[in-house]
Amino acid sequence: MVNVAIVGASGFTGLELLKILITHSKFNISYIATSEGGVTVTNLHPSLTDVFETQVHKADAKAIAQKADLAFLALPHRASMGFAKELLALGVKVVDLSADYRLELDTYEKHYCPHEDKAHLKDAVYGLPELYREALKKTSLVANPGCYPTASLLALLPFAPYIDENFPIFIDAKSGVSGAGKKCTSNTHYVSINENIFAYNPLMHRHQPEIIEKLRLKSGKTFDVNFVPHLIPATRGEMIDGYMLLKEEIDPLEILREFYKDEKFVRIFDKPVDIKSCAGTNFCDIFAKREGKKLYVNSSVDNILRGASSQAVVNANLMCGFDEDEAIPFISYAP
Amino acid sequence: MVNVAIVGASGFTGLELLKILITHSKFNISYIATSEGGVTVTNLHPSLTDVFETQVHKADAKAIAQKADLAFLALPHRASMGFAKELLALGVKVVDLSADYRLELDTYEKHYCPHEDKAHLKDAVYGLPELYREALKKTSLVANPGCYPTASLLALLPFAPYIDENFPIFIDAKSGVSGAGKKCTSNTHYVSINENIFAYNPLMHRHQPEIIEKLRLKSGKTFDVNFVPHLIPATRGEMIDGYMLLKEEIDPLEILREFYKDEKFVRIFDKPVDIKSCAGTNFCDIFAKREGKKLYVNSSVDNILRGASSQAVVNANLMCGFDEDEAIPFISYAP
Amino acid sequence: MVNVAIVGASGFTGLELLKILITHSKFNISYIATSEGGVTVTNLHPSLTDVFETQVHKADAKAIAQKADLAFLALPHRASMGFAKELLALGVKVVDLSADYRLELDTYEKHYCPHEDKAHLKDAVYGLPELYREALKKTSLVANPGCYPTASLLALLPFAPYIDENFPIFIDAKSGVSGAGKKCTSNTHYVSINENIFAYNPLMHRHQPEIIEKLRLKSGKTFDVNFVPHLIPATRGEMIDGYMLLKEEIDPLEILREFYKDEKFVRIFDKPVDIKSCAGTNFCDIFAKREGKKLYVNSSVDNILRGASSQAVVNANLMCGFDEDEAIPFISYAP
Amino acid sequence: MVNVAIVGASGFTGLELLKILITHSKFNISYIATSEGGVTVTNLHPSLTDVFETQVHKADAKAIAQKADLAFLALPHRASMGFAKELLALGVKVVDLSADYRLELDTYEKHYCPHEDKAHLKDAVYGLPELYREALKKTSLVANPGCYPTASLLALLPFAPYIDENFPIFIDAKSGVSGAGKKCTSNTHYVSINENIFAYNPLMHRHQPEIIEKLRLKSGKTFDVNFVPHLIPATRGEMIDGYMLLKEEIDPLEILREFYKDEKFVRIFDKPVDIKSCAGTNFCDIFAKREGKKLYVNSSVDNILRGASSQAVVNANLMCGFDEDEAIPFISYAP
Repeated sequence: MVNVAIVGASGFTGLELLKILITHSKFNISYIATSEGGVTVTNLHPSLTDVFETQVHKADAKAIAQKADLAFLALPHRASMGFAKELLALGVKVVDLSADYRLELDTYEKHYCPHEDKAHLKDAVYGLPELYREALKKTSLVANPGCYPTASLLALLPFAPYIDENFPIFIDAKSGVSGAGKKCTSNTHYVSINENIFAYNPLMHRHQPEIIEKLRLKSGKTFDVNFVPHLIPATRGEMIDGYMLLKEEIDPLEILREFYKDEKFVRIFDKPVDIKSCAGTNFCDIFAKREGKKLYVNSSVDNILRGASSQAVVNANLMCGFDEDEAIPFISYAP
Repeated sequence: MVNVAIVGASGFTGLELLKILITHSKFNISYIATSEGGVTVTNLHPSLTDVFETQVHKADAKAIAQKADLAFLALPHRASMGFAKELLALGVKVVDLSADYRLELDTYEKHYCPHEDKAHLKDAVYGLPELYREALKKTSLVANPGCYPTASLLALLPFAPYIDENFPIFIDAKSGVSGAGKKCTSNTHYVSINENIFAYNPLMHRHQPEIIEKLRLKSGKTFDVNFVPHLIPATRGEMIDGYMLLKEEIDPLEILREFYKDEKFVRIFDKPVDIKSCAGTNFCDIFAKREGKKLYVNSSVDNILRGASSQAVVNANLMCGFDEDEAIPFISYAP
Repeated sequence: MVNVAIVGASGFTGLELLKILITHSKFNISYIATSEGGVTVTNLHPSLTDVFETQVHKADAKAIAQKADLAFLALPHRASMGFAKELLALGVKVVDLSADYRLELDTYEKHYCPHEDKAHLKDAVYGLPELYREALKKTSLVANPGCYPTASLLALLPFAPYIDENFPIFIDAKSGVSGAGKKCTSNTHYVSINENIFAYNPLMHRHQPEIIEKLRLKSGKTFDVNFVPHLIPATRGEMIDGYMLLKEEIDPLEILREFYKDEKFVRIFDKPVDIKSCAGTNFCDIFAKREGKKLYVNSSVDNILRGASSQAVVNANLMCGFDEDEAIPFISYAP
Repeated sequence: MVNVAIVGASGFTGLELLKILITHSKFNISYIATSEGGVTVTNLHPSLTDVFETQVHKADAKAIAQKADLAFLALPHRASMGFAKELLALGVKVVDLSADYRLELDTYEKHYCPHEDKAHLKDAVYGLPELYREALKKTSLVANPGCYPTASLLALLPFAPYIDENFPIFIDAKSGVSGAGKKCTSNTHYVSINENIFAYNPLMHRHQPEIIEKLRLKSGKTFDVNFVPHLIPATRGEMIDGYMLLKEEIDPLEILREFYKDEKFVRIFDKPVDIKSCAGTNFCDIFAKREGKKLYVNSSVDNILRGASSQAVVNANLMCGFDEDEAIPFISYAP
């Protein structure tokens, strides 16, 4: 058994981490923290009543290092790198769910803030197992991808050799409200989003540079990705609709099937995907259709599982030499 | 008072026609029909109890001609042209909410079926008041636009002079479930669409040729419009997100404001629109943003009002010489 | 034209007041205030863009008295009586949407706080027009009923002579989220209430004494009313299910029809009511069924219209000698 | 490994049976049938793509007997007893999810139809493990309880000794739409139930006699239970609010905690329950509150799990001598 800590357990991704790790046969949850502490797990998450209960501490790196070999950090950007730096120095492996180690230094500092742990940044591995599986097995620091980049990259990367980079890629994304976090805001008030839909941060979302950078690193090509996310009246789930031009008239489903033929957590559909069929799982579902040289790609993930917590546990499984799918949910919440 | 008939009163657009016409000071509802008849209005629409009640007839053109000067046809495609043909011959003005008179003959027959009323087809006026107001005042036959074309055309047309027609336009559309009709199907079952979203008929929806044709007729340019509609978990409302390339770096909000400066039922917003703010009204709300030569347009309408019934009454107002906004709803259902 | 003020315009009931008064032919909105001021109406309610715009002031009683003859107070309990007292002294009529003048002194102070305007309290008229119409025509101060009491009293009062007061009355109520106010809380976060339902304050809600007191004042009998409200995943609408014992085997629908035979805004249904059919209107819809001596009553209202703002305007119409239904909405938002 | 069949796999309870049995370490799904057959599992349930796939047969008792030792029947009332009778004769154990074996003969025939398998009816064990655990271990035929009776009985039974049977018990129940089945009807159309709530079959639902009979059999007392169910805008989950009078002033939470102290799948809460916290699990969550001699009980279950499929697998586990909680879900879908 490997002892693990969850730091930042109060939010939706914290709850999803708990739900998965409770059933994990090789990870033992030995430490749970929030920024304040002083509560128990079921104070934070009453749905775990009679299922799992323990004290929640005020997050402290030294205490974590005494109790755990690996820590999941579900913290806000910036706060995360402070913790990660200290934990890594104390020999604790880190899966960081924030943006702090996802980007190259320049890109990060342009879109977020000055980086405070440049030393580790260059060793962090981007936690998309389909792309970086071997490196993930050897690293001590995983930068868990954002939810939008996960769904976007898995849908776009198979087509990187065929996309015409002289033309922009447009991504119209839709996210359930859990993606906006547990904090109550005017956007997350029930009355604001029920019976509604709206775009936010059009063409300027922080996930846009993450998608562009990873596409470039993997394909060697710089694509002009333009990203417009929407909030939809659903709790969980996320859909990506991508529009682009191709250099040649390929068979997109054949390319997808070939690219992911050995992958357990990517499913290829021959009709448009929905968000309910993969809700509750680590699957990324993908469909694509070509019309002349125009390509439409369409993917979906559970934003707080494949887009956060279940992917984080996959990464931890790889880091610790366990089966990649140990405790990873694969049966959807549908209906 | 002008006597009007509603033919096809059982569906959602039939109900919206009733709701508007009940409050209209110059139209008198003198005849209501469905394909079967034999019921009353409140059998069909219990929400109108104690508000409006009358017998619903089995639709019959001769009876309509005796009772009404103008008929709203809320019938399925194909069924509509049979009725319209007969009514026009009997001297009844027609506002047809189906697709039967929306398209040029070739386009119609390619995407629907053989046309059975070619004589009137060439005289039909496309019922988008912002574009065809003067013609609407003189016609006896209005082809009421589809909901998606209404929102798409109003958002795209101001930019027609500036859009680079060498590149495709991509439209990612989202519609509330009322757009799928009152008939129960596996897609409209609550469990199917609640907590869900999915695309349907990607790149092959019948509204795609309607958008292309009207853009061409108004601008003289043939745009390659590619349309992907989605069903979202909301009852009413529809959003259009359009992505395209420009020939020059324009100020999109300024262009929108200038284009619609005299229009009462188009509102320009300086941030992304939502669907709730115009639900219950005849407004089309539009936002746009440019990034280099990339243009993002974003519009919303109430799909069964501006996308169907309130626009139909605007058209009828114009045909009869009434104020365009007589009885037209302008206060939204929000919150 | 009578000039009216809206004090507390930022919330849901403030918006509903605006929506009604904008279309009122005899009330002119001459002053709008919130506790902070310094914004415009469309800052608060973007859905009113291009419909109605004016400056919103920081609430000030003297300024109101200069500008308006009647004021609607959509303020929190306690804050309201301070304002009302001052306005009444300045000769301004008041429709108070808070609880401050709804209850007799003892009841109020037991369930709320010490009363600061006892002088006016005894002259306030409870604004349920079906019960107090004549008094409302002559008063300067209306205590607009709570949403739950409105639906409960209209359903229960016709049966007061027949209910066995030796047995408790149980009311199981359900409210849309707008009833919980515009402020974001953990209960109003979309994720908390979407796909959920829960009771709150069971058997101890503040509307319980309001129902008991009004039943007693009108019927002379003291009923043991027990109230359990629930929050449901809907924006607007409220349903009451009441369970009680009768002294004799009456025909409940006949009693309801007789009791409300001259009332325009109460509808009697012969099957269970829903909340959608009266959403957007001032109707209270009622159904009842008897089984032996057990009586089930079932009513619904739009919680922010009949349960607040449209009822407030009915009361203002009565106070000013206008037609009771002037500008009052009667066509539902369905579908 | 015990081979099991699922007969009636196309509906929501069929899907839930599949989801549980796929992960069961001791049951092997050896046969799946619907009334029509000729499809595969993922044709019926696309969310199982890449998870579980096999041919679905046209239901045939002899084929089942060759392939399986135990059959889950998720069939309509009446159809089920025909199958069960034949399967039992062929030595196949049966867990019947229909109403066919839930009631005593007289009660069944009064509320349903003539019974066609009286021989087995008297041996059927009612599948509420908390009440009939020992009998379930020895039987070949389990009548799986209805969803409403499960939640009602678990909430009421602990109080049976204390409830005053001279007064009625009123149950106000709320169910998610999955309870209305997968068939599209006007009630299950998204537009009908979204933003809505309504009672159906008030005081005459078929689950009312089931609750009364089981209360009588377990407590020896005949209670006058009056049941009013509602449909709410949620996919899964069910809540019971019960109102009654007591003979003495008990401590309801203490009684609940004592009654269920050894039960793994009943949770007692000290504040009102919701439906989301137990969605996705086999838990029944219960709260109760007393005011004088009035008792309010409040329970919730996942209607298609504890109210159907997971309880069915618990029963099958007991029948086969496995651990009662083998493969039974206990981690909720929240958030």
